[in-house]
Amino acid sequence: MAMLVDILAVGKLKDRALQMRCDEYMTWLGAYGKIHLETVPDSDPNREGSVLLQRLAKERHAHVIALAEEGREYTSVDFAHHLDGIQSKVIFIIGGPCGLSPEVKRQSNELWSLSRLTFTHEMARFLLLEQLFRAQNILHGGHYHRE
Amino acid sequence: MAMLVDILAVGKLKDRALQMRCDEYMTWLGAYGKIHLETVPDSDPNREGSVLLQRLAKERHAHVIALAEEGREYTSVDFAHHLDGIQSKVIFIIGGPCGLSPEVKRQSNELWSLSRLTFTHEMARFLLLEQLFRAQNILHGGHYHRE
Repeated sequence: MAMLVDILAVGKLKDRALQMRCDEYMTWLGAYGKIHLETVPDSDPNREGSVLLQRLAKERHAHVIALAEEGREYTSVDFAHHLDGIQSKVIFIIGGPCGLSPEVKRQSNELWSLSRLTFTHEMARFLLLEQLFRAQNILHGGHYHRE
Repeated sequence: MAMLVDILAVGKLKDRALQMRCDEYMTWLGAYGKIHLETVPDSDPNREGSVLLQRLAKERHAHVIALAEEGREYTSVDFAHHLDGIQSKVIFIIGGPCGLSPEVKRQSNELWSLSRLTFTHEMARFLLLEQLFRAQNILHGGHYHRE
């Protein structure tokens, strides 16, 4: 099945170097399906949360994965197969510098932790895109992911 | 105690965007002590391993932490305090695209896994530098790391 992914990210990517890398992965991911990245203005977790929840209210059939430190960890291979098993659009949510509101986490289908380490929200966006590309590579073959 | 860190990394950083970010973190880290990054030519894990082991043979009192997927995971705060507790020079080893030889892992004091996810070795270098800077910020105060 073709990939259908929306990413809702809080705050702009100010780091030009990471922005370049993210743009590149977005282009590469376009070969595997439809990927769309939308940013929500950075304010405070509650206000950001209201905007995110309004956006989610329009997508009742999507599978929502929020990035959160307390979430479940996956290996890249497990993540790829997990993603492959989801039959609907997948929406990833990345919070801003102060994290996501509890209500957004509660309304998500699952919480995913990229690492036990804390990274900046800008790095999280880059790591997510890289893992999405790696997942497509694992599922469809390619030389990007080596066991 | 001032930070005293050597990083032995296999292969050049070809990604200019990540190189820019790494240079920036290296400069920032210089404020906290001495950090030195050395690259070993990229060939195959065994040959790379011999070069790394020769280099380690000169540093009998250093604490060697090899980055490996099967290693222990830390939170950023636990990593900071762990690092702070090491009384000698710390040497981090980052393998190339094909990983580290078993002998290098065996001769390291510990194996550390940045995440259960697989990243490129270039990303690992960037993530390590960011975590070292975050650790100094956790230990010495600053606004970079937010709980």
